[in-house]
Amino acid sequence: MNAIAQAPVTPGFEAYPLPGSACEGTFDIPGEFALHHGGTLTAVRVGWRMVGPEHAPVVCALGGISASRRVCLTEKPRESWWQEVAGPGRPLDTERFRVLSFDFLGGSGETSGPAPGETFPSVSTYDQAEVLLRLIDHLGVRSLRAIAGGSYGGMVALAFAERYPERVARLIVLCATDRPHPLGTAWRSVQRDIVRLGIESGRAREALALARALAMSTYRTGEEFQARFEGLPVLDEGRFRLPVERYLHARGEDYALRNRPEAFLCLSESIDLHRVDAARICVPTAAVAVREDMLVPLTDVRGMVARLHSARLHEISSIYGHDAFLKESQQLHGVFAAALDSH
Amino acid sequence: MNAIAQAPVTPGFEAYPLPGSACEGTFDIPGEFALHHGGTLTAVRVGWRMVGPEHAPVVCALGGISASRRVCLTEKPRESWWQEVAGPGRPLDTERFRVLSFDFLGGSGETSGPAPGETFPSVSTYDQAEVLLRLIDHLGVRSLRAIAGGSYGGMVALAFAERYPERVARLIVLCATDRPHPLGTAWRSVQRDIVRLGIESGRAREALALARALAMSTYRTGEEFQARFEGLPVLDEGRFRLPVERYLHARGEDYALRNRPEAFLCLSESIDLHRVDAARICVPTAAVAVREDMLVPLTDVRGMVARLHSARLHEISSIYGHDAFLKESQQLHGVFAAALDSH
Repeated sequence: MNAIAQAPVTPGFEAYPLPGSACEGTFDIPGEFALHHGGTLTAVRVGWRMVGPEHAPVVCALGGISASRRVCLTEKPRESWWQEVAGPGRPLDTERFRVLSFDFLGGSGETSGPAPGETFPSVSTYDQAEVLLRLIDHLGVRSLRAIAGGSYGGMVALAFAERYPERVARLIVLCATDRPHPLGTAWRSVQRDIVRLGIESGRAREALALARALAMSTYRTGEEFQARFEGLPVLDEGRFRLPVERYLHARGEDYALRNRPEAFLCLSESIDLHRVDAARICVPTAAVAVREDMLVPLTDVRGMVARLHSARLHEISSIYGHDAFLKESQQLHGVFAAALDSH
Repeated sequence: MNAIAQAPVTPGFEAYPLPGSACEGTFDIPGEFALHHGGTLTAVRVGWRMVGPEHAPVVCALGGISASRRVCLTEKPRESWWQEVAGPGRPLDTERFRVLSFDFLGGSGETSGPAPGETFPSVSTYDQAEVLLRLIDHLGVRSLRAIAGGSYGGMVALAFAERYPERVARLIVLCATDRPHPLGTAWRSVQRDIVRLGIESGRAREALALARALAMSTYRTGEEFQARFEGLPVLDEGRFRLPVERYLHARGEDYALRNRPEAFLCLSESIDLHRVDAARICVPTAAVAVREDMLVPLTDVRGMVARLHSARLHEISSIYGHDAFLKESQQLHGVFAAALDSH
């Protein structure tokens, strides 16, 4: 398989080799793309990226709604969303596997998404799964050794396995289940309403930063916040600021520079519309649950594992809560080894 | 003691008897009122209310930032914020105790607070404690049998006990500690930023409703939300709505009709500026911690109890999380009995 040679020349950026073993490109899905929740898109473009040895088994890595095709081994390490977990000698070892990813449909990357000011149709995790199917068809990948997905990416992995079980051998699903938890939905629905208020009042960027700040305070744990932000309030420009406030503000601003409000609305909603039928998923699955995860509680992962045909539950503890799938490299070594080597 | 006779006639509403044993009134604090965080107020008015037998020991009951002087036994039960816990035969028995409360300084009630469009100075829990001191002076109450405070009211109780230990015999502090937890601060700071964005863009009421929706999703527990809001999304006016979204929207709208955005900003900030010195509090204290409380974690209450001179910790479990202090009447009977009868 030679992904570079196969990628067609499109008006987007072409498939081209990157430093080391990386290559990336875009391709256009021909014809209409029918969406799960209704409506169709035309001329869907998909931005993808791959790293790892050319003939190694392909593992698709998918992250949260703010992740991108850039999994690891980017020129600027900050541009990688999974560099603690994927890379040479990491749990997802790029010397043994070819790691594929793509920008989500409806997001802020190179894949089709809402233009500024545009409302995009509702996107399902089944739609993302279909994008992945079209992508591996395009790249000539007969079957994925695995899909390793965290958070939203885990939901997409489940959707893919339900629909296209012959195209993937294993799932590694981290901090994700077959349906969202209503408390997470509550927090995300407030985030979307903040962004809508901002768009309607001409202050979309500020609102997106604020929504991201709220999201950040659901990804981690009280224990971590306690350890990092115990300081006293400081008077600044006429009002008191607290250490945690400064942190959330900085993280939110940074996010708002790199993401479109309309794309955030689309992918955030996609999480809350996610529902797959676990009883129809037969692909062997390693499910990772974090005891401290406020968004995806352990009991929900246990419930899903009980509904899946062939699943193993890995419970871990982490001060990073939901974000453990990005951080707990050490604890994930065994999970990846068990899932990827049992082929 | 006759509160009705002692309450002076002011340009506010006068002290007057209400149905049953209730009476209420306003009084003006003479001269300047110096605020803990700097600045002074003039002509501070205090709106108060009392229910229970005229010569019974007085217990001050204080709730969260959306509570008011109306603790229980109001004509419309919905106007009472603590009716599960205070009333005839309840844990705080209005046949045995006279229950006093007041509207918080800086809030939306009859006590002085920000006018629409006005920024009010920062208010400390020590300031609320001073308001209570002035109030009991005014009413001729030498010493309170207890202050029973939940959430923000518990913080005010601690501030009062630190400053005026000779004026209160017992504290019952529910879901509150000597300092706020940074994760709670994170959630509240986002709420305040939502309201500020709304004020600045002329959509303050909507923004306040949204801030309240966020607050609601931190008061309860994932378990409760799971039990109540498991339904599917429904298409409504062109976009999907989820059951929990409808609920939060309704609760937020209701709140925004009854509260001023500027008052919310003031009292929400007051929580995050709260810091008292537990080591200087000698008043015997019953502290109630709820294991499922996301805003005031059990470990924080344990820490405070260890710092207090004379405290007993009551741990309870509740699906209502932080709101357990409003709901768990049965579990609070023993706590109130132990604290109020040990005098």
